[in-house]
Amino acid sequence: MDKVNLAQKFSMFNDFWSPKIVGELNDSHVKLVKFKGEFVWHHHETEDELFLVIKGSLLIKLRDQDIFIEEGEFVIIPRGVEHLPIAEDEVQVLLLEPKTTLNTGNIDNERRVVDLEHI
Amino acid sequence: MDKVNLAQKFSMFNDFWSPKIVGELNDSHVKLVKFKGEFVWHHHETEDELFLVIKGSLLIKLRDQDIFIEEGEFVIIPRGVEHLPIAEDEVQVLLLEPKTTLNTGNIDNERRVVDLEHI
Repeated sequence: MDKVNLAQKFSMFNDFWSPKIVGELNDSHVKLVKFKGEFVWHHHETEDELFLVIKGSLLIKLRDQDIFIEEGEFVIIPRGVEHLPIAEDEVQVLLLEPKTTLNTGNIDNERRVVDLEHI
Repeated sequence: MDKVNLAQKFSMFNDFWSPKIVGELNDSHVKLVKFKGEFVWHHHETEDELFLVIKGSLLIKLRDQDIFIEEGEFVIIPRGVEHLPIAEDEVQVLLLEPKTTLNTGNIDNERRVVDLEHI
């Protein structure tokens, strides 16, 4: 059984907005992703999603609230809640979400990533 | 919607081996726990369990392997796999596991915690 070192995994990729799978447990995936810039407003119909900031700062805009998440902080976005991740500078994020979760949720555009890499 | 700051939450308790619930998503709880010393061999019949070390060093013994987990590292112990957490010094750990998970798994002894505090 292998442990996962987050820094080592983050060093393996440089693309933004493209989550990599680094673990699976129960019905969920653990993913690592780098964000930079602004994503797209979306929601997930049936999945709650956890964002844990490992390095940097992340803004998640909701329709009625801005949430600033720093290193060592997480937020859980419940299913159905529209959100927009924004990273002024590069941020490293650990995601935890059901295996069914698509990064763009209800939005099918060029930002959608369907076949996630396992690293 | 509130974010969770891990260091702030860890500052709220000092007891060992007593996980606190700091978030829920889908069918799972996010828990924080401090370990010090040796726990008890156990397994979980139907739940996979993630241990992410936030501060300190954790040894998880399996029957055929020792896994040393440092800050910024995690391991997923699959259901059915016997394990024994050992912390030589205090370690702060984030757990992710199904809401049904008991800390002592198949072992019902004085270390079992049934009513977990939400902090």
